[in-house]
Amino acid sequence: MDLLNETLAKIQPVNPDCLAQAQAALDNKTKPLGSLGRLEEFGRRFAAISGNLSPDTEKKVIFTFAGDHGIVEEGISAFPKEVTPQMVFNFLRGGAGVNVLARHSGAEVRVVDVGVDYDFDPQPGLIVRKVAKGTKNFVQGPAMTREEAIAAMEVGISLAFEAKAEGVAMVGTGEMGIGNTTPSSAIISAISGKSVREVTHRGTGINDAALEHKVRVIEEGLRINSPDPNDPLDVLAKVGGLEIAGIAGLVLGAAANSMPVVVDGFISTAGALIASELHPHARDYIFAAHQSVEIGHRFMLERIGLVPILDLQLRLGEGTGAALAMGLIEAGVKILKEMATFTEAGVAEGEY
Amino acid sequence: MDLLNETLAKIQPVNPDCLAQAQAALDNKTKPLGSLGRLEEFGRRFAAISGNLSPDTEKKVIFTFAGDHGIVEEGISAFPKEVTPQMVFNFLRGGAGVNVLARHSGAEVRVVDVGVDYDFDPQPGLIVRKVAKGTKNFVQGPAMTREEAIAAMEVGISLAFEAKAEGVAMVGTGEMGIGNTTPSSAIISAISGKSVREVTHRGTGINDAALEHKVRVIEEGLRINSPDPNDPLDVLAKVGGLEIAGIAGLVLGAAANSMPVVVDGFISTAGALIASELHPHARDYIFAAHQSVEIGHRFMLERIGLVPILDLQLRLGEGTGAALAMGLIEAGVKILKEMATFTEAGVAEGEY
Repeated sequence: MDLLNETLAKIQPVNPDCLAQAQAALDNKTKPLGSLGRLEEFGRRFAAISGNLSPDTEKKVIFTFAGDHGIVEEGISAFPKEVTPQMVFNFLRGGAGVNVLARHSGAEVRVVDVGVDYDFDPQPGLIVRKVAKGTKNFVQGPAMTREEAIAAMEVGISLAFEAKAEGVAMVGTGEMGIGNTTPSSAIISAISGKSVREVTHRGTGINDAALEHKVRVIEEGLRINSPDPNDPLDVLAKVGGLEIAGIAGLVLGAAANSMPVVVDGFISTAGALIASELHPHARDYIFAAHQSVEIGHRFMLERIGLVPILDLQLRLGEGTGAALAMGLIEAGVKILKEMATFTEAGVAEGEY
Repeated sequence: MDLLNETLAKIQPVNPDCLAQAQAALDNKTKPLGSLGRLEEFGRRFAAISGNLSPDTEKKVIFTFAGDHGIVEEGISAFPKEVTPQMVFNFLRGGAGVNVLARHSGAEVRVVDVGVDYDFDPQPGLIVRKVAKGTKNFVQGPAMTREEAIAAMEVGISLAFEAKAEGVAMVGTGEMGIGNTTPSSAIISAISGKSVREVTHRGTGINDAALEHKVRVIEEGLRINSPDPNDPLDVLAKVGGLEIAGIAGLVLGAAANSMPVVVDGFISTAGALIASELHPHARDYIFAAHQSVEIGHRFMLERIGLVPILDLQLRLGEGTGAALAMGLIEAGVKILKEMATFTEAGVAEGEY
């Protein structure tokens, strides 16, 4: 069996007994029942995912997948394509948004070249697993072959298995790829049947005329390729991206390894959506970091069945939202692990 | 001039030039314009409040004000009054929710006894500045005298001045006081003119019948005391609390000292509301940590003019939300201080 199918076969639902045990432990802490709201949810889910009522959260890694997009030829982005490798160098020097926020949360950033149209020299912090030098322009045919899409997913899957073996407690997703809100909108439109206009926004900041053009380009790409909404790999290959495939693989690999995975914003969630369409229990392992400004994001989260942790009007990607959310998820786990119980503290319980 | 009026006279609006300079610095960072949303707001405001484009965030202190409430005699809480000192001991041992979350954010918790009905021995972490052994039952007359309310506010003011002198970069508010959602609802009802029912919720978790009773108790307290909505000190004294007064003072003291103050949930915001009614520019220095489950909270935030940072369905108080929000505010400041500019990183800028 190939790695993708092996991974899918390993994914189990999260154990409901473990969720209940974690909640019972939270209910003994010195606070009114349920008064720490979603922090309790984070602690409970993290414990159940890890199968451990006192889970470790120390080692946190954000994988920022980078890939280029042939569709950039159509003029759908405010930034030139060269910015993809330029930003990879910025990540490697520690100067980008995700670096700052990951340092703040105690997470490590690893950049994965799964499809950048540039030859990087080997260097610390960069993982080169290039499947292709970018996707093809999807208004002229499929962005990738099905084999390329699977190969890029398997990059993400392998990284999840390696992270588990290394003792990583929680992984996060991030991405860099000029033009990549365009395939992300195409994916949610293809899968949900919603109109392109409903799920397409300004990306890095295009104006009204450019937004109109972007909508038409995506409509044309969907018309030409007719991706099959019931075949997530077909959608991914025809109108997706290599970094989006890498993220889908990381999510599935995390789920197969009982590792919590924090999914960043719009583009990352496109990857998580593919994963979730491929396996109904992938979602059990996902924390949705934040609600992006991109209008299609809401529909993706609803379809997967996730409620975002933060709403800070972010639209940068890279893994910036995941870095912030990791801090809050870890806080929830610490509530479970570190708070005193009523008995330990000698505090009287309430009557409801 | 007394300390309260001296403090009010010192409060200045935040410098708009400094806000603009901070935003200009953010606009040169390697990201699309505005793409870090509210993180940029946090960085910009923190810089302008501190009057420093590269502000320090290292030393963070949460002041958790504790006080008892005579109104507890009316049976408005799910927990007995003894829990106030019991929880103070829990704070001092580091086992409460606020301790866990403050450690996570790198903040120190200082507990301030401004009105607990219990004699504490001096001990590390506890600041005893008791004004009274709890408020009086406000269905039988005013909760405090005007002098007591001012004295409790001046405790908070003094702590802010001391914190500034000590090099504290950011303060947070928190509270403990069994029964204290009741005076908080009374305050927002008195000031806004909204009905008691619209602004009163379940506190630590009372049932429907107890909620009905709580509404009637607050209505009766407002009827008996007729606090003057145009005199915030009158409202505070007649239906407020000693810890709420302490928080109001901390907010004013922080504003007078150009120190950002992170206001926790419902009860803390009642204190911030009093501060904001006393001085129109107090709000410039406040970060609203989170949207509480308590229904009156929204009206308080709207009246002050603040948008909460988090919505995690919290309703514990203590400063738990402030501790979490401090981490996000600090993240925003680090974006301003640590991210590379387009020039530094050799990244091409976008065209919009």
